[in-house]
Amino acid sequence: MTPLPLNAAIGIVGGGQLGRMLALSAARLGYRIVVLDPNRHCAAAQVANEIIVGAYDDAGALAELASRVAVVTYEFENVAVDPMRRIAETVPVLPPPHALEVSQDRVVEKAFLNGIGVATAEWRAVDDVQELDHAFQDLGGDCILKTRRFGYDGKGQATIRQRSPHAEAFASLGGVSSILEKKVPFDFELSVVAARGADGAIAAFDPAENVHSLGILRTSTVPGRITPELAHAAQAVAARILEHLDYVGVIGVEFFATDGGLVVNEIAPRVHNSGHWTEAACTVSQFEQHIRAVAGRPLGSPARHADCVMENLIGAEIEQALDRLAEPDTVVHVYGKGDAKPGRKMGHVTRLHRRDR
Amino acid sequence: MTPLPLNAAIGIVGGGQLGRMLALSAARLGYRIVVLDPNRHCAAAQVANEIIVGAYDDAGALAELASRVAVVTYEFENVAVDPMRRIAETVPVLPPPHALEVSQDRVVEKAFLNGIGVATAEWRAVDDVQELDHAFQDLGGDCILKTRRFGYDGKGQATIRQRSPHAEAFASLGGVSSILEKKVPFDFELSVVAARGADGAIAAFDPAENVHSLGILRTSTVPGRITPELAHAAQAVAARILEHLDYVGVIGVEFFATDGGLVVNEIAPRVHNSGHWTEAACTVSQFEQHIRAVAGRPLGSPARHADCVMENLIGAEIEQALDRLAEPDTVVHVYGKGDAKPGRKMGHVTRLHRRDR
Repeated sequence: MTPLPLNAAIGIVGGGQLGRMLALSAARLGYRIVVLDPNRHCAAAQVANEIIVGAYDDAGALAELASRVAVVTYEFENVAVDPMRRIAETVPVLPPPHALEVSQDRVVEKAFLNGIGVATAEWRAVDDVQELDHAFQDLGGDCILKTRRFGYDGKGQATIRQRSPHAEAFASLGGVSSILEKKVPFDFELSVVAARGADGAIAAFDPAENVHSLGILRTSTVPGRITPELAHAAQAVAARILEHLDYVGVIGVEFFATDGGLVVNEIAPRVHNSGHWTEAACTVSQFEQHIRAVAGRPLGSPARHADCVMENLIGAEIEQALDRLAEPDTVVHVYGKGDAKPGRKMGHVTRLHRRDR
Repeated sequence: MTPLPLNAAIGIVGGGQLGRMLALSAARLGYRIVVLDPNRHCAAAQVANEIIVGAYDDAGALAELASRVAVVTYEFENVAVDPMRRIAETVPVLPPPHALEVSQDRVVEKAFLNGIGVATAEWRAVDDVQELDHAFQDLGGDCILKTRRFGYDGKGQATIRQRSPHAEAFASLGGVSSILEKKVPFDFELSVVAARGADGAIAAFDPAENVHSLGILRTSTVPGRITPELAHAAQAVAARILEHLDYVGVIGVEFFATDGGLVVNEIAPRVHNSGHWTEAACTVSQFEQHIRAVAGRPLGSPARHADCVMENLIGAEIEQALDRLAEPDTVVHVYGKGDAKPGRKMGHVTRLHRRDR
């Protein structure tokens, strides 16, 4: 693709914190940002050049977005695929809609991963309680039932044990098409945030060790317990995924570290919460990296100049955000959201630990 | 002062690149930004929450700004003092209007500096050609005639030598109140960007060696030829100035390095072009530092994690800005201005040189 010239406009579907941080990075590179979001005062719109108010899958709003920009990207994986395919006929959509399709259905995602030789939890697609019973016997052991689609931050999940009332669990997720995954006994969780440029170049940031609580990411620590060998293995898996998706942009790949090696939990075709530390510890953040990629510009080096811990500020925790400014070598980032609802990601803090001091 | 709470609004008088970079830093801290500028599409408005369109000295526009924000700051030193004093009766104006008054008149500025024991070029106030002749004889040697007010980027200046036609020089500056400064024979130019918090704490970034061309800053190199001893001396002068002005916010202090020690050239009561490198080489940039100060929050550490060279992109040089993305360890910053007029500051690039690699 021809690199986007200065002052070109980039469209972002979704105006949450990820869109906001993409917009801030795009501004620094001299690109204009048009956000599509149902909320005129969303986090991203506050720092964007323009906002189109509309639903993410509103064909008219998407067509309007496509008409105003040189490339369209998105900040979350549950964007409807068909409308995105339609605008992709008139404007580049990056990452490619196929990546959306793969990542927004857990069955398609795992079939794709296994198909390219990437290990995942053992799994079975289940469409009713009888299939659930069979799948549970088949997998043999504790399992997690998840909806195939629209799950995030631990929503749409239920644990399934031998004596669990399976019918209740299935009903609790709404009786929709689901996936039963065998629980993976893991030492810890980690993720790789990596990018592929329009030229096919790949740059992976160092993996982060992640701690979740109630399904929500709490901290990402770099390097944490991740050995250089494990880091290389995880980055190689991310590169394999990027190449097979003919991907352009930033991707997040979540893993379990197990006795038997790395197991992929899920992929997210977008900038990723576990990569927020890059704004503090790298010359080029994951946000700028994504903008560079979708703009057809060369990727930056993913090298890291400090160890660090990124901590999410959830719900009312945001009230202490600015007190953290008193801490040394700390980067505070607040998303400008008005309503600090429980469980809502409101900001994050990255504490740097320099190796040369 | 009470620290500004999350989501509080900060007003910025002036919507150029400095206002834009302040707005980007404020957004990261969760503050809202209202810009006052005559141009609705100015660089800062593109990333701000609100824009008030009006002249910088329009009493009505300033009153409107004051009514919408919790604190007012400014991005350039030629803001009219009296209107700012008037709004300071209803909302904090930081840095204090007195700092504006001192810095926007070269005679007042030099009298202030000499009064607190800070060395400057020898100087005389001149209001007509006869005074110019007398001042020139008095100072003895090559001099520079400058308008007392409204000079920037080398504008409003003329060199005065023995046989120069003094009357022509005086007329060329518009025949306005001026200052004659004796030329300082210097080894190189340097500057300190420093901050004072509402609590009186002072944090000075490392000084940069500056190269100007045709009166416009071309490069700032850290540390350049600046020894640790010279750095400490320059930072001490900046601290002295900050304290005597009872200052809150970031200031830029420009020096000549001479055989006889440091001589202050001028001060700027705002974030400073020679401090743009801080966004790339420090955890807390000069922009975030200024926002922290005027918000009544603690200053960040000014420690630097890399050596660097910041290069301004002037006029048509901006067309190459995005080609620089291919350079390693380089931060590119574009200001989003439409018209790349000759001499106009359009962006900058900071190249990092890590000591630990």
